[in-house]
Amino acid sequence: MDQIGIQHDNFRTAALDELAVALGHKGILTAPGDCVRYASDQSGLHGAAPLAVLRPASTEEVSGLLAICHRHRIGVVPQGGRTGLSGGACAPAGTVVLSTERMTGVIEIDEDAMTLTAWAGTPLETVQEAARTAGLDYPVDIGARGTATIGGTIATNAGGIRVLQHGMTRANVLGLEAVLADGSVISRLGKTVKDNSGFDLKQVFIGSEGVLGVVTRAVLQLRRYVTQSALALFAMPDHDAALKCLVAARQRFGSRITAFEGMWPDYWDFVCHETSLASAPLEGRHGFYLLIEIEAEAAGSEAELEEFFAELFEQELVEDGVLAKSLSEAQALWKVREAVGEVDGDFGHHINFDIGVSPSALGRFCTAADARLAQLPEAGAALKVGHVGDGNVHLLVAHDGSAAAEERIEAVIYALLEEWDGAVTAEHGIGRIKARWISHSRSAEELAMMRGLKAQLDPLGILNPGAVLQAAQDSREGRWRYRANPARELP
Amino acid sequence: MDQIGIQHDNFRTAALDELAVALGHKGILTAPGDCVRYASDQSGLHGAAPLAVLRPASTEEVSGLLAICHRHRIGVVPQGGRTGLSGGACAPAGTVVLSTERMTGVIEIDEDAMTLTAWAGTPLETVQEAARTAGLDYPVDIGARGTATIGGTIATNAGGIRVLQHGMTRANVLGLEAVLADGSVISRLGKTVKDNSGFDLKQVFIGSEGVLGVVTRAVLQLRRYVTQSALALFAMPDHDAALKCLVAARQRFGSRITAFEGMWPDYWDFVCHETSLASAPLEGRHGFYLLIEIEAEAAGSEAELEEFFAELFEQELVEDGVLAKSLSEAQALWKVREAVGEVDGDFGHHINFDIGVSPSALGRFCTAADARLAQLPEAGAALKVGHVGDGNVHLLVAHDGSAAAEERIEAVIYALLEEWDGAVTAEHGIGRIKARWISHSRSAEELAMMRGLKAQLDPLGILNPGAVLQAAQDSREGRWRYRANPARELP
Repeated sequence: MDQIGIQHDNFRTAALDELAVALGHKGILTAPGDCVRYASDQSGLHGAAPLAVLRPASTEEVSGLLAICHRHRIGVVPQGGRTGLSGGACAPAGTVVLSTERMTGVIEIDEDAMTLTAWAGTPLETVQEAARTAGLDYPVDIGARGTATIGGTIATNAGGIRVLQHGMTRANVLGLEAVLADGSVISRLGKTVKDNSGFDLKQVFIGSEGVLGVVTRAVLQLRRYVTQSALALFAMPDHDAALKCLVAARQRFGSRITAFEGMWPDYWDFVCHETSLASAPLEGRHGFYLLIEIEAEAAGSEAELEEFFAELFEQELVEDGVLAKSLSEAQALWKVREAVGEVDGDFGHHINFDIGVSPSALGRFCTAADARLAQLPEAGAALKVGHVGDGNVHLLVAHDGSAAAEERIEAVIYALLEEWDGAVTAEHGIGRIKARWISHSRSAEELAMMRGLKAQLDPLGILNPGAVLQAAQDSREGRWRYRANPARELP
Repeated sequence: MDQIGIQHDNFRTAALDELAVALGHKGILTAPGDCVRYASDQSGLHGAAPLAVLRPASTEEVSGLLAICHRHRIGVVPQGGRTGLSGGACAPAGTVVLSTERMTGVIEIDEDAMTLTAWAGTPLETVQEAARTAGLDYPVDIGARGTATIGGTIATNAGGIRVLQHGMTRANVLGLEAVLADGSVISRLGKTVKDNSGFDLKQVFIGSEGVLGVVTRAVLQLRRYVTQSALALFAMPDHDAALKCLVAARQRFGSRITAFEGMWPDYWDFVCHETSLASAPLEGRHGFYLLIEIEAEAAGSEAELEEFFAELFEQELVEDGVLAKSLSEAQALWKVREAVGEVDGDFGHHINFDIGVSPSALGRFCTAADARLAQLPEAGAALKVGHVGDGNVHLLVAHDGSAAAEERIEAVIYALLEEWDGAVTAEHGIGRIKARWISHSRSAEELAMMRGLKAQLDPLGILNPGAVLQAAQDSREGRWRYRANPARELP
């Protein structure tokens, strides 16, 4: 094993030898040049080059390698597409990476049961395309669809823009197979829709960010594929009016609403007027902007949105609006909302908060956040864009790039959030970056229960050490120093 | 404490004294005449009169009483409306009952967030009515709605006829408060729709039948209240044709389908021709019958169902059909389906299986079950009725009333179910009656993980002892003998 460029003791050499035998030539990477690109995800946090990258090709191989790592107490970082934004797939020093990149492909589509069974390493987009070929759809959708994997989206309970209609990833997983830290396989892939035969164990793995088990296969619930939709942009005086529009839209369109996205004027002005990221589809300045998309049952759904607009206009809830009359007009409207993914260059150093509160409190929370930020010399401009129906705002706060400014702004926003009983992360996950803030969203009793579950399912703490539950005063970029063998030292 | 009619040692006397002080006069019943009606649920299993009935009025009281019972190792059986069909609320000898009957009422309806917060003891129907008063709806619906409580429906993850559209109870719970065996309160009632801030702990309690914690309050996700619907009954050659109708209906109506209920001819003939439970809304004998209900967007939904029928008739998928043109006609159609709740008197001794398989396999499973039953001298007539879209059939098998016949029929059906990777209970729960069959639906690894979760959260085994996880060769009616202090002896 002399190709490993990191110092290790005989203990580890023995473990890596065993892993190499178990996984074969294709199943393990140990050359530093190969390993280094598995160090980090898209969070900006820098992981360490792993001791080895394990690339199992089956559930049995995942089970076997975890049994070996468990016996040797080697920390294992599960990785899908490494598109996470919270550092959940960043490797602490002294760990190995378990990549699902060779466990890929759609296993079965059952058109009658409307299910798709896939390996964890299958990219989300591959699943979506396979479903659509069968006239069906997998409704979980996020920007990283081409790279993010099914296993990763399940481990992080991915959200996205269609949560209002079909829920988070959790609501779309029918069956799951996962492997525990000691190699035990928990497999339930039988496509039953209703199954109250004991605890629903898959729920424990969904959204637990790889610290309780490694997802290997999943049965996904497909929906019909709706290709026709109607899209409109409404402008209104404030978030309160937008909330009233949401209530009215839900009464009128029910579960046909596919998107209900909100933009505050700070965000709108920045992307439409201060940058060339998008051009304003409406003139004038308004207090709030809503992008509303509904499933079209048949031709005529544009008329339904027009009628809806007229009704809201009558009630003085909306001030202006524009309906997309073509695909290119729809793309232009979406461009304003999606520009949030491209603001980095123009907006400079900033924190991207991913906040969840009650949908009925979102507007008031944002007003309160603006007031707190206004008193904070460290905080620059703030942009707000989000999923109004889900009570989820992405709040971007500019600062001077210093760790002190970042620290201060985070402390202020998360303290406020605690007052509002909100979530420090609505959809991106805790990972390693937000582990230090989790107590602002979870009580001491909840954290104790989480640690209890972790201790029960992974008593040696080998799975994704430092993610989610690390108290982590040292888990931020720059101050992120993992101990030599974190697996031994987790509570 | 001399009003307690059951022998107990000084140890228990001390515990009951402490409980009486903690809960006050209204909060505890100890007279045998008061306690005996809390012995059993609707399963037919006979529980023992509890040592005492604890009637807390707040989360704090639940926490306090559990801490006392934990310290004294007294088994606690949580009870809602006692409408369960699996014996999950039947009291083993030597336990106390925790009834939520004083923790009742709707706490808040948030029309903007479309949520309703209620105490666990609130009847389901009370919640539905409160939601409807606000123009909204809580879509979980079961026959026992008047008595079943929100806490009980959450603890058992209740299903019902609207699962196809809105999912089981799990899909409709946004926030939850539960108390662990040692009195720790796990509370998350903040109305966040999206919250990935660590493990989703509420999932652990939903569907765990009171063995991991006691539900005290919940935030429920409401939906719009749709009062208009269209209903039709279709007759077709077989289940395979019904499955094709389901696929076509989902493509055409999407999530507007509110019910998709199937009746096999054995069931149809029994309720329509061999009893006076219902009269046949269609003439002739067919291979399968479907009751299809869709949400009406506006007037004209009857025409939509007529058009759908014409299309299916063209494809020779349906042979006959009838559309409900009035409320009384709709009630007559529903009566055939709902007669399953009234067959007991006419059908005699029988087992009521609650089986879940993949929706695409349901027809073939039922054919295979009929074949196995035909070879079984112990089995009499079998009736099949169920939720086609959910792959859930209620299979009623008549027998001579002997325990031997019951045993043999259950063994054969559950062995078959294991071959089909199905659920021994789709919606009723394991409770105490099905605990001995759970291994037909769960692997050794899954059962070990369940026992691990139980050991972690309730290490002394005081919560609902004997439910779900009891290996239970002695848990059937007649042979159901609980040890004096089951809490001490659970694994």
